[in-house]
Amino acid sequence: MKRDMENKEGDGKQRLLIVGGVAGGASCAARARRMSEKIEIIMFERGRYVSFANCGLPYYVGNVITDERDLLVATPNLFRRRFNIDVRLQSDVRAIDRQKQEIEVQNLQTGEIYHEKYNALVLAPGASPIRPPLPGIDLPAIYSIRTIPDSRQIRDWIIERDVKQAVIVGGGFIGLEMAENLTRRGISVTIIEMMPQLMPLLDPEMAVPLQEHVIANGVNLCLGDAVSGFSRNNDGNSITVSTKSGKSYSADMVLLAIGVRPEISLAREAGLEIGKLGGIRVNHQMRTSDEHIWAVGDAVEACDFVTGEWTLIPLAGPANRQGRIAADTILGRNSSFRGVQATAVCKVFNMTVAATGVSERTLRRTGSTGKIGEYEKIYLHPGHHVNYYPGAKPITIKLLFSPANGRVLGAQAVGEEGVDKRIDVISMAIQKGATVFDLEEAELCYAPQFGAAKDPVNIAGMIASNILRGDAAVAHWEDIDRTQSTILDVREPGEFLMGHYDGAINIPLGTLRDRMGDLPRDKEILAYCSVGQRSYYASRALRLNGFKAKNVSGGMTTYLARKSLKSS
Amino acid sequence: MKRDMENKEGDGKQRLLIVGGVAGGASCAARARRMSEKIEIIMFERGRYVSFANCGLPYYVGNVITDERDLLVATPNLFRRRFNIDVRLQSDVRAIDRQKQEIEVQNLQTGEIYHEKYNALVLAPGASPIRPPLPGIDLPAIYSIRTIPDSRQIRDWIIERDVKQAVIVGGGFIGLEMAENLTRRGISVTIIEMMPQLMPLLDPEMAVPLQEHVIANGVNLCLGDAVSGFSRNNDGNSITVSTKSGKSYSADMVLLAIGVRPEISLAREAGLEIGKLGGIRVNHQMRTSDEHIWAVGDAVEACDFVTGEWTLIPLAGPANRQGRIAADTILGRNSSFRGVQATAVCKVFNMTVAATGVSERTLRRTGSTGKIGEYEKIYLHPGHHVNYYPGAKPITIKLLFSPANGRVLGAQAVGEEGVDKRIDVISMAIQKGATVFDLEEAELCYAPQFGAAKDPVNIAGMIASNILRGDAAVAHWEDIDRTQSTILDVREPGEFLMGHYDGAINIPLGTLRDRMGDLPRDKEILAYCSVGQRSYYASRALRLNGFKAKNVSGGMTTYLARKSLKSS
Repeated sequence: MKRDMENKEGDGKQRLLIVGGVAGGASCAARARRMSEKIEIIMFERGRYVSFANCGLPYYVGNVITDERDLLVATPNLFRRRFNIDVRLQSDVRAIDRQKQEIEVQNLQTGEIYHEKYNALVLAPGASPIRPPLPGIDLPAIYSIRTIPDSRQIRDWIIERDVKQAVIVGGGFIGLEMAENLTRRGISVTIIEMMPQLMPLLDPEMAVPLQEHVIANGVNLCLGDAVSGFSRNNDGNSITVSTKSGKSYSADMVLLAIGVRPEISLAREAGLEIGKLGGIRVNHQMRTSDEHIWAVGDAVEACDFVTGEWTLIPLAGPANRQGRIAADTILGRNSSFRGVQATAVCKVFNMTVAATGVSERTLRRTGSTGKIGEYEKIYLHPGHHVNYYPGAKPITIKLLFSPANGRVLGAQAVGEEGVDKRIDVISMAIQKGATVFDLEEAELCYAPQFGAAKDPVNIAGMIASNILRGDAAVAHWEDIDRTQSTILDVREPGEFLMGHYDGAINIPLGTLRDRMGDLPRDKEILAYCSVGQRSYYASRALRLNGFKAKNVSGGMTTYLARKSLKSS
Repeated sequence: MKRDMENKEGDGKQRLLIVGGVAGGASCAARARRMSEKIEIIMFERGRYVSFANCGLPYYVGNVITDERDLLVATPNLFRRRFNIDVRLQSDVRAIDRQKQEIEVQNLQTGEIYHEKYNALVLAPGASPIRPPLPGIDLPAIYSIRTIPDSRQIRDWIIERDVKQAVIVGGGFIGLEMAENLTRRGISVTIIEMMPQLMPLLDPEMAVPLQEHVIANGVNLCLGDAVSGFSRNNDGNSITVSTKSGKSYSADMVLLAIGVRPEISLAREAGLEIGKLGGIRVNHQMRTSDEHIWAVGDAVEACDFVTGEWTLIPLAGPANRQGRIAADTILGRNSSFRGVQATAVCKVFNMTVAATGVSERTLRRTGSTGKIGEYEKIYLHPGHHVNYYPGAKPITIKLLFSPANGRVLGAQAVGEEGVDKRIDVISMAIQKGATVFDLEEAELCYAPQFGAAKDPVNIAGMIASNILRGDAAVAHWEDIDRTQSTILDVREPGEFLMGHYDGAINIPLGTLRDRMGDLPRDKEILAYCSVGQRSYYASRALRLNGFKAKNVSGGMTTYLARKSLKSS
């Protein structure tokens, strides 16, 4: 017998209560109704809106989205009419009585407190912006952006106070999107980020093109520094943001964008298991440690699809999938959440950064003793479409893979066009356990406007496959300073003169076969060019002629990014 | 012992000869050099260029690409210097002596005839445009476009003859790209296509938005009609194109774009096996029926990855992959060609059409007794990104899948933005044997500019998965005229009044639960809305309340495309 909610014994209608009405909660409610017309569904939302477009808020501040109503994906009325779901706004769920299967709710408009019984309870309370307990943190000009009222307040403040300068604390998704949108409104922006890079999702060398782009668009960056406090200026309006290194920035407005923390107070007070990362612990069916309570979205820890480790991924896509799966399992389905891949994308001015799977940072942290073991990586810098068609923009791609079996572990990409596409294709590859050999043989759309006969995804696969087959040996710039090898630059003399690695010798690819005698047979030779293609040809020719040659992945382009890292 | 070319016994250098120097031949040559520094490689090309950007030619005619040199991906000099490959242009390989392992070559500049021995021979002769033996086919104004000289002649003709009107015969890739590019040059274009649709790669109902877009951009379409002949007009310059249905069009220029035919004369005269479709027959190693001869590119038949049938796919991507695989196997590697998925894309004015895997046309042809068996399909019309962010453009997607196991069989998409991305993701899914359940659970890039928390690929997967799980039953418009079912329109009254299916009754989704009594319990109910989402909700509610409800896939949007098919 299926032990689902609809078919349980007992009197009266079975009740599903849902705490939180945005991505995960709203998805769960709608899905549950599609699974059962019999049960009663009530969704409680503390705020004044359900199912709003969280991810659109920065663009509402930036006046890209001008009508606030556009941010409302669904209204309580729509939930009632379409799905027969009772939505209660401004309703704070204050406590869970697990024995009685009952929640305590406060109507925030009237102050009234009441109780509701449940057969199944879903917690989708989300996460709240982190507000560190710094001196001055409660000054009026310091905002976070998480809700429609938040963004409305920021919009009002910008106009009322005629904001000219803003400081954004945090250089991740929200910080960068807000930097763009405040800049769009003519505000001078400084980003203060504790890590020495923007967008900690990316490995540091991959963030370099993004940082250059953001600076080129007039944003001031203060990386590797932390805010120590805020103080009101003498003019009474603006505030000064001080950093640990001793810098200070004057601002008419501060935006805190240093991340979010799962909202777990309700779950913790009810005695539900909490994970080590501070999220509600659930199983693959999104069920908590209480068999009648499920949890979804930003408040839960999820399993990383690649590493198998618990992780916090506050993104809308996984939240929606989790909501559906909770509804399914509540109604007796055997659905299961496959984990998160951490696929993410962000557009900042004209640049797109995206990633899927694990980063090298994560792989270093988990180490070779983890589930994955050793890893290898490559860099490439192809055009987003063929170069013969006007408008090709370079994409910088980093691919991480297992040298043991070729399995694709992760990818990061930065560029102006076609970045999301390549990461989406690799995301599907990772989902299906694909190897770099599969990327090599992928058959992707090619017309001059879209790609190339060898798409960047193919090229990434080819470079990695060549390494795995032993056709190419790879070297990385970060290892070169420690090496005694001969460094060979195979670019044309003109390119060499424009800048090269100190101590490199220059033998252009076209003359290499005639000049192999100039190279040592007993020493390792590390060949590089502009992006790594010509030096691959060179290293192949050298290896086939008996030299110990390796190709330096990513060429000068990757070198310059690394160099900029060190100097910053 | 590896029986590869490099390690064969015998005197002197081993020789690899390659006939044809564009995509497949050039890839093969470069790859072979990377596999061996010892062998001699000679590439013979009948034309004056190797490795040119065939796919860029229409844009050279349209002055999007203005410098002819941009079309040269590689030159003979580059092949010699980088790869130590001897490239011989204007060299016609006239015969193969398989016993002697020798080819006969004519130097087209000097007329000289000579012979070259080979250890391995690769045929990459390509395909030639079909020129049907119609009356007047040899008139001077009638062109094909396959080479750089072809496009140069067309450019010259346009200027010299001040071309005002052009007829394009054939509405596939080249015909459509040329229609755009000639229109760009101010020329009035008529496309005559024998099939009743443009872009025969697509199923007919999917070509409708493309046809509307092309017409909206000023192109005149003559579909379902064939050219019967050409005649010179009295002015001595323009010609009249007559069709079988009795129409006639005056044109200053005609472009033949009715497809290509594999160049197999050399192979056939050498007695190599030719397939039923008229391409050179090769095995998975790209080896012909002669163990010393390989063939790659547009001249060969390839195995369809999904159906397992032989097919002709004259595309650059597969040609490149085949060239690499031929080189690998010649040099002793165990590489194997996995077949073609027929992934293709074409941009026409502002519209992109793309497809991967099989079409419904192919599935109907192979029938339920084929390798695939039964199939099911769905239509959807999501925005290319969230609607709350400005600029969302609809994509029409058709997904074909196996109802037996959910395996994704093929997909087609039409729209202005993000079309190539969704087809590339589905292409990777097909490559890895993914099911619609995998599409449902895919984790793709989401930021407002790029997609949605539920990406179109997810939605396609969800719709199909709901059918396979039995949660939704699907109906298709083409079956509805034959049905006695109740047709239910669940849109709002205002939408209903703007146009609806004849005989449909209108009960908006929001009032459905109150008005279920108006619906028959003993008859099938087919629900539709604008795109199929609200009617999915409606059909779920009806089914859970005991009605026999189905959802009509794609809603009014798909209905209108089908209706336009019938009326044309």
